Amino acid sequence: MFKQTVCLLQKSTKGAWSNMLRDPSTKYSAFEGVQLKDRTWPNNKIKKAPRWLSTDLRDGNQSLPDPMSIEQKKEYFHKLVEVGFKEIEVSFPSASQTDFDFTRYAVEHAPEDVSIQVLTQSREHLVRRTVDSVKGAKRATIHTYLATSDLFRDVVFHMSQQDAIAKAIETTKLVRSLTKDHPDMQDTIWTYEFSPECFSSTPSEFALEICEAVKAAWEPTAENPLIFNLPATIEVSSPNVYADQIEYFSRNVSEREKVCISLHPHNDRGCGVAAAELGLMAGGDRVEGCLFGNGERTGNVDIVTVALNMYTSGVSPELDFSDIESIIDVVEKCNKLPVSARAPYGGSLVVSAFSGSHQDAIKKGFAAQEKRWANGDTRWMIPYLPLDPKDIGRNYEAVIRVNSQSGKGGAAWVVLRTLGLDLPRQMQISFSSVVQIEADKLGRELKSEEISKLLHSTYNIDSVAQTSVQLLDTEFKKGSSSDELILNAKISVHGSEPISISGTGNGPISAFLQALSTSFDVELEVANYSEHSVGKGSKTKAASYIQLSTAEGTSQWGIGIHENATRASVMAMVSSVNSMIAQGVISLDREQKRSSA
Amino acid sequence: MFKQTVCLLQKSTKGAWSNMLRDPSTKYSAFEGVQLKDRTWPNNKIKKAPRWLSTDLRDGNQSLPDPMSIEQKKEYFHKLVEVGFKEIEVSFPSASQTDFDFTRYAVEHAPEDVSIQVLTQSREHLVRRTVDSVKGAKRATIHTYLATSDLFRDVVFHMSQQDAIAKAIETTKLVRSLTKDHPDMQDTIWTYEFSPECFSSTPSEFALEICEAVKAAWEPTAENPLIFNLPATIEVSSPNVYADQIEYFSRNVSEREKVCISLHPHNDRGCGVAAAELGLMAGGDRVEGCLFGNGERTGNVDIVTVALNMYTSGVSPELDFSDIESIIDVVEKCNKLPVSARAPYGGSLVVSAFSGSHQDAIKKGFAAQEKRWANGDTRWMIPYLPLDPKDIGRNYEAVIRVNSQSGKGGAAWVVLRTLGLDLPRQMQISFSSVVQIEADKLGRELKSEEISKLLHSTYNIDSVAQTSVQLLDTEFKKGSSSDELILNAKISVHGSEPISISGTGNGPISAFLQALSTSFDVELEVANYSEHSVGKGSKTKAASYIQLSTAEGTSQWGIGIHENATRASVMAMVSSVNSMIAQGVISLDREQKRSSA
Repeated sequence: MFKQTVCLLQKSTKGAWSNMLRDPSTKYSAFEGVQLKDRTWPNNKIKKAPRWLSTDLRDGNQSLPDPMSIEQKKEYFHKLVEVGFKEIEVSFPSASQTDFDFTRYAVEHAPEDVSIQVLTQSREHLVRRTVDSVKGAKRATIHTYLATSDLFRDVVFHMSQQDAIAKAIETTKLVRSLTKDHPDMQDTIWTYEFSPECFSSTPSEFALEICEAVKAAWEPTAENPLIFNLPATIEVSSPNVYADQIEYFSRNVSEREKVCISLHPHNDRGCGVAAAELGLMAGGDRVEGCLFGNGERTGNVDIVTVALNMYTSGVSPELDFSDIESIIDVVEKCNKLPVSARAPYGGSLVVSAFSGSHQDAIKKGFAAQEKRWANGDTRWMIPYLPLDPKDIGRNYEAVIRVNSQSGKGGAAWVVLRTLGLDLPRQMQISFSSVVQIEADKLGRELKSEEISKLLHSTYNIDSVAQTSVQLLDTEFKKGSSSDELILNAKISVHGSEPISISGTGNGPISAFLQALSTSFDVELEVANYSEHSVGKGSKTKAASYIQLSTAEGTSQWGIGIHENATRASVMAMVSSVNSMIAQGVISLDREQKRSSA
Repeated sequence: MFKQTVCLLQKSTKGAWSNMLRDPSTKYSAFEGVQLKDRTWPNNKIKKAPRWLSTDLRDGNQSLPDPMSIEQKKEYFHKLVEVGFKEIEVSFPSASQTDFDFTRYAVEHAPEDVSIQVLTQSREHLVRRTVDSVKGAKRATIHTYLATSDLFRDVVFHMSQQDAIAKAIETTKLVRSLTKDHPDMQDTIWTYEFSPECFSSTPSEFALEICEAVKAAWEPTAENPLIFNLPATIEVSSPNVYADQIEYFSRNVSEREKVCISLHPHNDRGCGVAAAELGLMAGGDRVEGCLFGNGERTGNVDIVTVALNMYTSGVSPELDFSDIESIIDVVEKCNKLPVSARAPYGGSLVVSAFSGSHQDAIKKGFAAQEKRWANGDTRWMIPYLPLDPKDIGRNYEAVIRVNSQSGKGGAAWVVLRTLGLDLPRQMQISFSSVVQIEADKLGRELKSEEISKLLHSTYNIDSVAQTSVQLLDTEFKKGSSSDELILNAKISVHGSEPISISGTGNGPISAFLQALSTSFDVELEVANYSEHSVGKGSKTKAASYIQLSTAEGTSQWGIGIHENATRASVMAMVSSVNSMIAQGVISLDREQKRSSA
């Protein structure tokens, strides 16, 4: 089986793998998780927000090429409080004076309902220093850890499973004696968190065994449960395996009500968010992660995504991302790493559509939604937009962006949003080809001002001086019959002195076309016509769109915008005529008319 | 229940959600997928590579603010072939002349075993133009789609389910008549792909029904199956729901062997990779995606991650990422978007560890692995590094990087890698505090040259001019007894004329210390000592590390490097003595000695 693979690679590529890949299974092997054939999590749904723990200032900060300054840590801390985090891991206080000092700041500035969490290795002098760092806090969580996977125990710590259990008990008892059992420390609500580090690659039976030992040593209550944080320190398998591990733990741990199961996924296999979600379905009560998935290597799980996934499923995450831009500002400034343009919810490109069919669908979706909302149905259902950008403080301007991949809908959307002009469908098609040529020529996205300028120049909307025909004046009078209208207009052709033209019709459009026919040798018909109002109140104008065509079938759109709707329609025809002249389709030559007359 | 949530938000934040979030479930609701209580996928493992389809040039390109130029598309195409893709979606040829022309290029330059895939809407003139674009190809896949979700059918296309089925049959028959049934088109191996767009939010029964109708119209064979591409056009639920949908489809579609089930996840909920993996476990045969997850909004699924996840599980992905840097170069140049620093496998930070405990574990892991490898056990088992960076053409230099969050292991690793010096554990602790102070002061990561310079200055390794004591010459002679050694050395103190000192001991170290004691009023002891060779062959040197301490217990490390091991140890002691002088711990004052004598 595998030999065939190698042959394929050797044929198709010259890469190093063609030689190297004799059999990757000799170098790597799939992680074998717990066997849980009677799992129930795939039938569950997430129905309420978990407890959230931000480790941005600890796991996040320790992974930055350039860690946060104290000032940045402070700003970040206050932002986390504002977002609504009730548990914040602020540091590894025994590691440096800087971390210790910042912990003191957090203790002094935390609101009453926020627990300050601190991490420490399981070593006595470090534990003591760590407890010192949060002295006087209203609420504090002491977080200890011990690597429990075979690899870490054997290679890094040279500890047997029994050594590890003994060490965990010893540390737990030490923390207990320094905190909840200590007579001088009774003003703080103490929570204890224990992480069997590398839980994801630890035999599930042993993870349970060491946690039971810790629980017996701590003696938690249902009111203040002991937190067992079960980290995918390194993500080693698909997220369903992690969920099985969590369900196994949740079903088998004793006195379940006295235990809070915390998930701490990393993202090595790109499945951190999925691990958190399936883990919650499997019994997790709490999620540890960072905003936008900062953290060692590929990062901790992205709390923004897990929370907003909940939100778009109709469950409040109990975190407030209504002003996501201000959160991104703080995160990017402090981490000195950009939020990816494609990060779910927060990325700059995720509410944008460039492709024509997507743009078209979104436009139709907004139109249908307006009707639904008017009928009291407030559900959000827009194609390609799972979340209303306004819910996270973003607007609709970025939703549709225009480049050479965009169809008629894109440019039309921009024109509608920026100029208030709702181009008729046929005109959208015509204008989009102009836009596409321009975008192709420039090889990049067009800005909305560029599209707006292109519309003006294409339809000679207001560039009076450069156009062939200028409309100087119009006057309409009633004709002899009730449905007859007489037009007297003054125009200038190619900069000529004013020329008076006049025509009769059953409305302004036919009267103007008859005037053109009478004064010049030009026969035009109306192929399409529509108009709508622009703006409101005293500033309302009429926008008129007219497609004229010659007897040979060549047609051209024109736009006219004016306070007076009749004048707007004449302007639209002049716009169309000017395009035809520019393209050599017609010419307005009085001499020719005279001589042929 | 929900009212409580609102209260919490109102208390804790001033954000817009406190007012807005009366009940998000009235605006959003969880997607209800197919109910598949007897699912089998959670017990499955991915055991072989799927068929891969790169849509970088189509779905990827259409999502770029600045789409690729023709030259960039060509370069990207050749890179995809080099990586080993056998199916490449190159364009939407009916959309523009540019796309059509590029399709012709791809047809002419594709290797024989690569199928060129093109996408078209289900409209006759577009289908005809699309088939024209791949005429003459060795292998071609015509990909049609029709949006099947309720929202898209109702709002965008105003089509009933039966309308949609009729349209799909009509298009399939048209493609069939233009390709595999057409007498002039028999030189091409034609494959047909149909996507029920928005499969992820389409009732599963209807998705199956429309696909069955398409299958009946196409009449595929087991040798050349019909591809049903089942896209999560918008990711609307957790990946287990998508897997249930795939398993339902796979179990219920007729003539399963004539059907290739293709997955096309997007990443709106950050679970695209998980959806692909669980979808493969659920019966998927093929994955469509982009390198590093480019694509509309949050992107298509990242094929690099799905493939390398397979690789680290011991299964060959049959794609070659052995030179990932060159792939990143092409992707970043053509997409004009950076690959995120935390992208699994490819991100610049994902093989780096900054934290002290991680660095320490990695160092120990490499040491243990060297032993294992020497014993013929070639498995890769390094803490925090699920993939050997060398497998994707990256080296170990980036593995450990040093900033204020790093412990003893980090700087020691850099010193070992750059200078070949394997500092003793106690010395690592001592040096790491120097490094931490410097990194804290600069507020950023330290480069390896900076660490190396810091080592030299801290231990006065070669900055002769600035040091207090210079070793000018050493000479050892055998003493009266067989284990007695006499040292005669010349030193300069504070730039003095050469001073001769001599001492006797059972080795060079004790002899030098006795010389110091005899000539100056300085009593020092050896607290720690170690040495090792540096380099190979004629360039081998000895590196000597000696920690001296005073009678009061103040100690200082020193380093000496020399071709002669004895000389190296004396140099190490001089290095230590100079540090003690600089810190005012001792002084070498001959006059004082004389007067006191």
